[in-house]
Amino acid sequence: MDRLTEAIERTQNPSVVGLDPTPALVPPQVVASFADEVRESVEDESELPAAQLAVAYFEFNRTIIDAVADIVPAVKPQIAMYEAIGPAGIDVYTMTCEYAQQQGLYVLGDIKRGDIGSTAAAYSGHLSGVATDETVFDPWHEDAVTVNPYLGTDGITPFVEAATAADKDIFVLVRTSNPSSKELQELELADGGKLYEHVADLVEGWGSQTIGKHGYSRVGAVVGATHPEEGAALRARMPHTFFLVPGYGAQGGTAAGVAGMFDQDGSGAIVNSSRGIIGAWKKTGEYRDDMSADEALRVVASAARKAAEDMRDDLRVNAWR
Amino acid sequence: MDRLTEAIERTQNPSVVGLDPTPALVPPQVVASFADEVRESVEDESELPAAQLAVAYFEFNRTIIDAVADIVPAVKPQIAMYEAIGPAGIDVYTMTCEYAQQQGLYVLGDIKRGDIGSTAAAYSGHLSGVATDETVFDPWHEDAVTVNPYLGTDGITPFVEAATAADKDIFVLVRTSNPSSKELQELELADGGKLYEHVADLVEGWGSQTIGKHGYSRVGAVVGATHPEEGAALRARMPHTFFLVPGYGAQGGTAAGVAGMFDQDGSGAIVNSSRGIIGAWKKTGEYRDDMSADEALRVVASAARKAAEDMRDDLRVNAWR
Repeated sequence: MDRLTEAIERTQNPSVVGLDPTPALVPPQVVASFADEVRESVEDESELPAAQLAVAYFEFNRTIIDAVADIVPAVKPQIAMYEAIGPAGIDVYTMTCEYAQQQGLYVLGDIKRGDIGSTAAAYSGHLSGVATDETVFDPWHEDAVTVNPYLGTDGITPFVEAATAADKDIFVLVRTSNPSSKELQELELADGGKLYEHVADLVEGWGSQTIGKHGYSRVGAVVGATHPEEGAALRARMPHTFFLVPGYGAQGGTAAGVAGMFDQDGSGAIVNSSRGIIGAWKKTGEYRDDMSADEALRVVASAARKAAEDMRDDLRVNAWR
Repeated sequence: MDRLTEAIERTQNPSVVGLDPTPALVPPQVVASFADEVRESVEDESELPAAQLAVAYFEFNRTIIDAVADIVPAVKPQIAMYEAIGPAGIDVYTMTCEYAQQQGLYVLGDIKRGDIGSTAAAYSGHLSGVATDETVFDPWHEDAVTVNPYLGTDGITPFVEAATAADKDIFVLVRTSNPSSKELQELELADGGKLYEHVADLVEGWGSQTIGKHGYSRVGAVVGATHPEEGAALRARMPHTFFLVPGYGAQGGTAAGVAGMFDQDGSGAIVNSSRGIIGAWKKTGEYRDDMSADEALRVVASAARKAAEDMRDDLRVNAWR
């Protein structure tokens, strides 16, 4: 987590922008503007909407990235939003990751993968790339990925090894932000404690051989902003584990609520907002349906930058140091 | 699960072929044969090995599918193997799914996705396709997908809804086949029982509104062949839940061990083998390094068909009816 820690220090901003486009979050004139360009590339008329969305998503993401790259340390594209439109979406996901890395951002791929050992090894190609004797090809351009713990250690080890070899990181789901996360994660265990606490202890252990110069391992934890007290307790329980904290803003998490997830130096956590930043243009009053695509993207950019600044300042004042 | 049940009945074969190619499972002359074709399509020399593997994977998969399509009901491509080589691999994954559906096979996409509600809704596009007012585009060509339960009900509901709308199914991880699955799944709960039993009860409930004419719901369970006694107990505990049973063969599961996972009519489960079938060519003695690519693929085909027949017969005699 050294690179992430230093990027946060450089920007003085412990927040990450979620690049989670949906059809409703991209101004319609931006999607429409690609109709002609895309029509030439599809084989079948039914593919048009997805192909058009894919191109529009990249243009939208590039606008957001350009608007915030100097004030945030990281972005977190959620791959589900891209898978939702098929393989063309996956291309845009990797193009987005590559573009964000080129702008100096730490790219946290929210892929939540998890499987048995041999399969986890294949998934860990997200971090290691495709290596042969002669060449290494990194098609994914991610600096970290999220991983699901339900399979246990042998589903995690390949990711830890790939992360270590490539100077990258992983974040394992511990306490997710959604309401029904309690159905499994809060289960009381026979030996005391709850399931998420047991997972927390596993995560702290999985990272123990990879602690960097800032005191955090390469194995972080996902801890929802919607669980302030549990998050603060986990902070104490997992002293070498960096937290990725989703659920700020749209899902109800607040800066005060995440304050306890930072360590006493104000490090150890990064807070994500997706819709609150990339969808801020919808709430400015500046957007109009009859704007051109370029004009709409300018509103997207200024609204996203303003929302990212507001979030940064909120975290600085109410959560940090 | 009606379509899957009927496909098993038609072929009298409760097995599914895992299409999990790796660089070591595809004969090297097949990969080499695409060198020239692929060189023209890549922008950078470093992309060559991945692009070549992608084309070779499709040729390999098509060979396997053609060899077994009349004797097996289903195939299960593991998307991790395709993600391992980047977006080009994803294209081949969807082409493989589409080709298998065209040959009449039920396609079980082993994607093990899982996330919060709004994100799960995006992932459920794997089943629903991309729908707009005018058109529906199904880029994934899957009949079912596997899903991870760690996020709870709101991470599952969007998949159930998409499956119901599209006459498809899902399989939720309950008791996975890998050794360290016990670290979470076997945890003893304070109210008695183990975590995987609690998940089993959730899964039976998640499917309860979608029970088909053969008595099984659209929400199946993944139960490893490496846990025979637990599997038999789960069969009794989950009367409306169809089982996807990985771990036969290479991972140590046997036909006798999975016998208890079928119901008294011999229905209710499908057993997967991947390496045992797609890697059978390596053990025949018929393959030689100096064969042409076409000759090597003929060995792949005949060995895969023979292995699939042997597995079918093993299950018929030792596990079924």
